[in-house]
Amino acid sequence: MSELYRSHNMNAGPGALPLEVLQQAQTELLDFKGTGMSVMEMSHRSKEFDEVIQTAEADLRELIGIPSNYKILFLQGGASLQFAMVPMNLRPVGASADYVVTGTWSKTAVKESKKLGTVRLAANTENEGFKTLPTSLDLDPKAAYLHFTSNETIHGVEFFNEPTPPDGVPLFCDASSDFISHPVDITKYALMYAGAQKNAGPAGVTVVILRDDMLERVPANMPVMLDYKIQAESGSMHNTPPCFSIYMIGLVFKWAKKVGGLSAIEKMNRAKSDLLYKAIDESGGFYTGHAKPEARSLMNIPFRLPSEELEELCAKEAKKAGIIGLKGHRSVGGMRASLYNAVTIDSVNMLVNFLKEFQRKNG
Amino acid sequence: MSELYRSHNMNAGPGALPLEVLQQAQTELLDFKGTGMSVMEMSHRSKEFDEVIQTAEADLRELIGIPSNYKILFLQGGASLQFAMVPMNLRPVGASADYVVTGTWSKTAVKESKKLGTVRLAANTENEGFKTLPTSLDLDPKAAYLHFTSNETIHGVEFFNEPTPPDGVPLFCDASSDFISHPVDITKYALMYAGAQKNAGPAGVTVVILRDDMLERVPANMPVMLDYKIQAESGSMHNTPPCFSIYMIGLVFKWAKKVGGLSAIEKMNRAKSDLLYKAIDESGGFYTGHAKPEARSLMNIPFRLPSEELEELCAKEAKKAGIIGLKGHRSVGGMRASLYNAVTIDSVNMLVNFLKEFQRKNG
Repeated sequence: MSELYRSHNMNAGPGALPLEVLQQAQTELLDFKGTGMSVMEMSHRSKEFDEVIQTAEADLRELIGIPSNYKILFLQGGASLQFAMVPMNLRPVGASADYVVTGTWSKTAVKESKKLGTVRLAANTENEGFKTLPTSLDLDPKAAYLHFTSNETIHGVEFFNEPTPPDGVPLFCDASSDFISHPVDITKYALMYAGAQKNAGPAGVTVVILRDDMLERVPANMPVMLDYKIQAESGSMHNTPPCFSIYMIGLVFKWAKKVGGLSAIEKMNRAKSDLLYKAIDESGGFYTGHAKPEARSLMNIPFRLPSEELEELCAKEAKKAGIIGLKGHRSVGGMRASLYNAVTIDSVNMLVNFLKEFQRKNG
Repeated sequence: MSELYRSHNMNAGPGALPLEVLQQAQTELLDFKGTGMSVMEMSHRSKEFDEVIQTAEADLRELIGIPSNYKILFLQGGASLQFAMVPMNLRPVGASADYVVTGTWSKTAVKESKKLGTVRLAANTENEGFKTLPTSLDLDPKAAYLHFTSNETIHGVEFFNEPTPPDGVPLFCDASSDFISHPVDITKYALMYAGAQKNAGPAGVTVVILRDDMLERVPANMPVMLDYKIQAESGSMHNTPPCFSIYMIGLVFKWAKKVGGLSAIEKMNRAKSDLLYKAIDESGGFYTGHAKPEARSLMNIPFRLPSEELEELCAKEAKKAGIIGLKGHRSVGGMRASLYNAVTIDSVNMLVNFLKEFQRKNG
C-alpha cells in the first residue's frame, strides 16, 4: 500500500478532522461493531444508534462540563438556521433582543433576527473595520437576550471573556468557529450553538446547548422542525437525525477527551496561533494581520500581503506545497489560515516556514 | 483479512446502501482524489466539492429526466421540514391547498401545513385504515397546489399513477420513500421532495426538485434557510451544505445509472416485492399484508402474524438469522420489510425462506 498523502488543511470550514477519527470511521464504514451495517444504514431507533447519540451527548457534557439542567440538541441547517430559530423560539412577541456585532456572522444574525422582530445593537465594531472587540456595551436591561458571536470566522476576532448581560438577561452565543477549542463556563450561558464543521466534525449537524428554563419561552404551534421544545423532548429524534454526522462528532468528542480535554486543546491552539502571529509580526510589514492584537482569534487568522497579485501567488504556491485553504473569504479577500483543533503544529510549522521562504523570494 | 459480514437490511430508513457505494466511500475516506483530504474536510467552495455537487445534480437530472426549467436543491431537515417549507414558500397568503391523505406521513404533512394556513382534504383513507388509495378526489380548482405522498412508509400504500390536479393547479409530491425506485414523468409535477435516507443515501440531505415558475411565489423576507428562492439562487450553498451526504447521494445516483437506470431498478423492485407478497399470500392466512393488493407498495411491506407474541418472536429470530429491521413502526406495531433499491434479491429470498420456515415451526 502506498503511503497516505494528507495535506496541511487550513480550510475555514469544513476543515481538518483528526486523522485517527477518520481512520476509525474508515475501518467501521462497512460494518459498525459487528452489525453487518454501516452507521449510515442503521435505523435511528436501533439500540446501536441510540448508543452512538447518547455517547456523543455524554462525552460533550463531560468535555465542556454541561450541567443536567441543560439540553443538548443535534439539529440541522447550520448556524444560519439558528439565526432564525433563536428569535422564533426565544424572543417573546413584542420583546427586543440585544446583539453584539463584531463581524460578518454576528451582522448576519442581526439581519435574520430583524425579519422576525425587534433587534437592538449593544455594540457594533463595523466602523472600525471589525478588527477589534467592543470596549463597552450599551445593554437593555429588559432585553429578551444578549447575543454575541464568540469567534468571527471571516474577520478573525475572538472573545476570550464573554460579555456580561444585565441581571436576568440570558446570554446567547454563536460559537460555531471556536466551539470546543478552549474551556468555557457554560453556566454563564442560556444558549450556545455551533455548526459542527469547524472543530467538531463534518458539515450537516448543528449542536445547540440550551438551559431548560428557555424552553418555557417556546411558542405553541411552531413547525416541528423549528421547535426547540419538540426537539428537546424527542432527544433530537423527532424525525431522522443526520446519523452519520452525529457519529462523526461523537468520534471527535472522544478524541478531544483523549488528547486531554479543552484545557490541553486550548494550550495547543495557543501554541499554534502564537507561531503564526509571531511570523506575521516579525515579517517587517510584509504580512499584516487583520485583527488588533488584543482581539486576535486562535482559530482564524486573516492577513494581507503588499498586493493582491502577491496574495494570489502566495495561495497558489502554498497549495503546490500542500498547504490548502489560504485564500481569504470571498467577501473580504486577502489570506486566511484556520488553525482548528485538528490542524497539527507540524502543519503550522510548515506554513510558517513556507511564508518565510515566500517573503524571502518575493519581499 | 476476515470476510466482510453484511446483514440483510430491511430497515425502513435509514436503510441499506449499495455495497459498492460504501466501498468507494471507504476507499476515498482519507484522501479524496489525491487532495490529501476527506470529502468531509474539503471547503464547500473548492473546485473539488463543486464537481461533487454538480455531478450529483447532473446524474439525478439524467436518471429521472429532469428538464432544465426545474431546479434541484440539496437541503437539510428531512421531509418534516419540507412539510412547513412547502406552504411557507408556495401557498400565497389567504389561499388554500389540497392534500391527499393516505397514511401517517401525508396526515403529518397536513398537520404542519395547517399551522401556517388553510388546508382542504381532497381525499382521506383513514376510515379505511390507510389500506388503499382513494378511488376519487374532491379537488379545488383554485387550490394553491395539490399535495400527495407517493409512498406511505408506515402503511405500505403506493401510488403507481399520480393524481391529476385540475388545470392550473400544480402537483406537489412527498416522494421520500419511493424516490428513484421507478421512472416518473417529472413534468407532471411542480415540486417533488424526498429525504435521502431510503433509496438515495444517508440521512442528512433532502432533495427538492422544483419547477422554476414556483419560485415566483416565494414571499419576501423569509428566513434565508427556509427560502427556496435563496437556496435555488445559491445552488444549495447559501451556507455550508451537508457535504458528505451530498457526496454519498452522488455515488448512489452513479450506481443507479450503472445498474440500468430507473426502469431496470423498478423491474428489480417488482421482482423483490412479488417474492414477498407471494409468500404472504400463500401462507394460508398466517401472514396477512396490511395494504390491499391494488395499492401495495414495492418499497415497504407491512404485515401481521396471528399474535403479537409471534411477531415479537419472528423479529427476534429473523435478527438471529441476520435479517434486520422487521419490526413495524412503533405507531402501528406488526412487522414491516422495507425493500429499497439497495436490498438485494438474495436478501429477499433469505427473508422469504426464513418466513416459510418460521411458519412451519410456529404455524
